[in-house]
Amino acid sequence: MERALLEARKAAERGEVPVGAVVACAGEILAADGNRTRERADPSAHAEMLAIRRAAAVLGTDRLSDCDLYVTLEPCTMCAGAIAWARLRRVYYGAADPKGGAVESGVRFFSSPTCHHVPEIYDGIRAMEAAELLKAFFAARR
Amino acid sequence: MERALLEARKAAERGEVPVGAVVACAGEILAADGNRTRERADPSAHAEMLAIRRAAAVLGTDRLSDCDLYVTLEPCTMCAGAIAWARLRRVYYGAADPKGGAVESGVRFFSSPTCHHVPEIYDGIRAMEAAELLKAFFAARR
Repeated sequence: MERALLEARKAAERGEVPVGAVVACAGEILAADGNRTRERADPSAHAEMLAIRRAAAVLGTDRLSDCDLYVTLEPCTMCAGAIAWARLRRVYYGAADPKGGAVESGVRFFSSPTCHHVPEIYDGIRAMEAAELLKAFFAARR
Repeated sequence: MERALLEARKAAERGEVPVGAVVACAGEILAADGNRTRERADPSAHAEMLAIRRAAAVLGTDRLSDCDLYVTLEPCTMCAGAIAWARLRRVYYGAADPKGGAVESGVRFFSSPTCHHVPEIYDGIRAMEAAELLKAFFAARR
């Protein structure tokens, strides 16, 4: 999660919403990135999506069954869907996102019958730091 | 939708689940693609995601507010999330997907309070043809 927080800080420096994500397998980081929706002009370029896509490319498979995702913010609906498609084993996340999250908030996708893979979920990991980054970012923009 | 069906047929020829998508703006096709999850080793490479990402790249923005999406199958949870992030104006889709869809099925994302943009939805467009493609594809794999 240290690395995910670093990626979130780097995203903020780029003027992107500060969320960072890491995909790791057997103790090794396969991919790490932060939000890049503006830089890439890509509405899907959330930190989780970029890390998942990169890890899948590294492993040469669309199934990341032995991999874990670390992300500083509760994944949104799009990213929760991608997590299920990627068959990730575990998801560790930081701050909850009542307004846009889809794990403990919103559509709670992993509890839906249309979710065909449910990872183990660990929430609240260094949540205060992750939330502070977001709070400071949005406060500075007001 | 004709072009989306063509992309779905091309996906089947590549051994991919036959779903095709098009993003159009002011009567012009900006992007069209089919599923490429296997070819790209990318769990997020659904037809809709590829078409949305390509259209956003063409326009140089992560907001496709004046664009419409045509897709042969009801979007899944990931793609419904991406459609909302992309701020697409309208979504026209073919066959319903009770097992994996997220528009009229499953989490019905566009009716959720955590969905921050709701496109106009038109369902059942050439649904029989779209469903037949999927049926034939899965029948051939059994």
